[in-house]
Amino acid sequence: SVTKNIVVLPGDGIGPEVTSEAVKILQAVCERHGYKLETESYDVGGASIDRYGRPLTQETLEACKKADAVLLGAVGGSQWDDQPKDKRPEAALLGLRKELGLYANLRPIKTYEPLLQSSPLKEEIIKDVDIMIVRELTGGIYFGRPRLIEKTNTGERGVDTLVYTTEEVERIVHTAFETAAVRNRKVTSVDKANVLDSSRLWRRTVKKSAKQWPEITLEHMLVDNCAMQLVRAPSQFDVIVTANMFGDILSDEASMITGSIGMLPSASLGKEHAMYEPVHGSAPDIAGENKANPLATIASVALMCRYSLDMPEAALEIEEAIQTTLKDGFRTGDISTDPSSEYLVDTEEMGSAVLKHL
Amino acid sequence: SVTKNIVVLPGDGIGPEVTSEAVKILQAVCERHGYKLETESYDVGGASIDRYGRPLTQETLEACKKADAVLLGAVGGSQWDDQPKDKRPEAALLGLRKELGLYANLRPIKTYEPLLQSSPLKEEIIKDVDIMIVRELTGGIYFGRPRLIEKTNTGERGVDTLVYTTEEVERIVHTAFETAAVRNRKVTSVDKANVLDSSRLWRRTVKKSAKQWPEITLEHMLVDNCAMQLVRAPSQFDVIVTANMFGDILSDEASMITGSIGMLPSASLGKEHAMYEPVHGSAPDIAGENKANPLATIASVALMCRYSLDMPEAALEIEEAIQTTLKDGFRTGDISTDPSSEYLVDTEEMGSAVLKHL
Ligand SMILES: CC(C)[C@H](C(=O)O)[C@@H](O)C(=O)O
Ligand SMILES: CC(C)[C@H](C(=O)O)[C@@H](O)C(=O)O
Repeated sequence: SVTKNIVVLPGDGIGPEVTSEAVKILQAVCERHGYKLETESYDVGGASIDRYGRPLTQETLEACKKADAVLLGAVGGSQWDDQPKDKRPEAALLGLRKELGLYANLRPIKTYEPLLQSSPLKEEIIKDVDIMIVRELTGGIYFGRPRLIEKTNTGERGVDTLVYTTEEVERIVHTAFETAAVRNRKVTSVDKANVLDSSRLWRRTVKKSAKQWPEITLEHMLVDNCAMQLVRAPSQFDVIVTANMFGDILSDEASMITGSIGMLPSASLGKEHAMYEPVHGSAPDIAGENKANPLATIASVALMCRYSLDMPEAALEIEEAIQTTLKDGFRTGDISTDPSSEYLVDTEEMGSAVLKHL
Repeated sequence: SVTKNIVVLPGDGIGPEVTSEAVKILQAVCERHGYKLETESYDVGGASIDRYGRPLTQETLEACKKADAVLLGAVGGSQWDDQPKDKRPEAALLGLRKELGLYANLRPIKTYEPLLQSSPLKEEIIKDVDIMIVRELTGGIYFGRPRLIEKTNTGERGVDTLVYTTEEVERIVHTAFETAAVRNRKVTSVDKANVLDSSRLWRRTVKKSAKQWPEITLEHMLVDNCAMQLVRAPSQFDVIVTANMFGDILSDEASMITGSIGMLPSASLGKEHAMYEPVHGSAPDIAGENKANPLATIASVALMCRYSLDMPEAALEIEEAIQTTLKDGFRTGDISTDPSSEYLVDTEEMGSAVLKHL
């Protein structure tokens, strides 16, 4: 349609600052491509707890369901850490994922050439890295039941349950292979099949499903080995598909390849809804100081243009603009390595620099 | 006592080659310090499957129980991969851990100065790294019940269960704090307390237990963040204590800090028994070629001298000998970076070089 309806969930910490820059960019590409952008903002996470006593209200959820896409900033902060689990900011994330059916979390890991040297890894190790991590997001040990802490005769006992069904695995494998088909045609399925029954089902299902994509190379890797290979030789990977918890760990690890978690966008996709958010957190220590790096959120808006708004060119334009902005030397504090040859800018200035490069 | 009784489980692949070099070193330090060394060898893993139809026999297990310590090479190989899980080589490892009560897996991650440049990480990131990972080894999702694959109306469902009790956490925390007490007095407890109930019990128990060691700094870290920090700034860590699966993933990842998994030893300790093994696997591709790097197994024997044989000086002597052997330029293929200035040696020659440096 000619109007794009976006729900913005700024959240906590630096969330409001970074989403506001990203909306600025989205506004610009919508105008350029002849769309009208309508945005509505709702509290979520800690902000929602403070206002409504819950991290995610029914009203917010309903609004997200009606939108073309959701843009989330970040949630969390130490002031809410001692709450019971359903009253903590993270519960909003888990609730949104489950209620919107966002089973596929896509996290592209790609090094920006001007930032190569800011990685803790050697340049020759990371220079050709272009990985897409496809993480299952609504199943596994995040949502399995029973989950409880109970008294025993001598203390307590904490239990979590890791469950996967054939259908859940097939669905995420489909996303992974379709993603690989328009990339480098290789899928690495990561599991722990030498120990876990759920991983044996996972591996067996992946093998069977893979037959539908004979032109794509499939490889299986144990999660411990993958954690090692991501540091040793990350350029061997194209698409990595894995369970919820493994994906959580591996994608944070992989974020370091690029030198800064402040650069990484993500998309969480379902059959009917989609949510976009930077991988970094709410960074309460610099909140409100106009210091945060908005590029991950801006890059998330590029993914939104590609996967939800039917604006693939706008996606490319935004991604190019980020590249040239970096090439021209604009840096927020977190990605600055050589202040003498760079322009140190604040959050707003970075947003405006990208806008100018569009 | 004056006789040290060791059970050697060479296992599969390169296991026999590397254990044989390590026994050579153990023999030498025992002689020097006035002990008699008695060793008995038993099949385990694939070797045991081929001979007895099972990865771990009762006889092997009984022998391990009677020994002062067990030295294991490695188990596994693709020829056994399609067996049902209790007939696979890894089942021997899990069986030994459980039956011998080896609840604490210690993996030291320390960079050897002469190998600094072989790490994929930049030298300034890794140069001061000295981490001890203390992994819980007989609980968690590796052993929790139920674990099963069952039919559903539309497919299958795979289930694993993650369980921790107060006592299991207290026990491993005790090991971690006692370890930190003779190191740099910092413990990082790694969990996923923002999602898992078992982690919430873990964190709560760690907090309570930690009061017994007021002189040691305790910090809690989420597993995804830890996976990132191990790449970003590994020198921040002293002792890391974590659950079985998290420890499996993080220790393989951390192994890359040192450049080669071929260098890393491990100790698995229980109240009554102990087993020592290199972190690397059976490397079937180079098995029988006298090419494997025996240093991780030799370093495991050093740990054995320290934790099981009451020969702390011998432990230091072995560790020093490894250092000087490397400093003198001896390299197996896996750790060779500049053949023009190094002596490229085979498995046996490396063992003999360490022996000479003792
Ligand atoms: C905040 C937390 C619940 C969340 C997760 O574990 O999924 C985060 O780490 C992420 O990766 O989005
Ligand atoms: C072989 C496998 C069962 C084992 C584990 O997962 O514990 C291995 O990866 C290890 O770390 O010793």
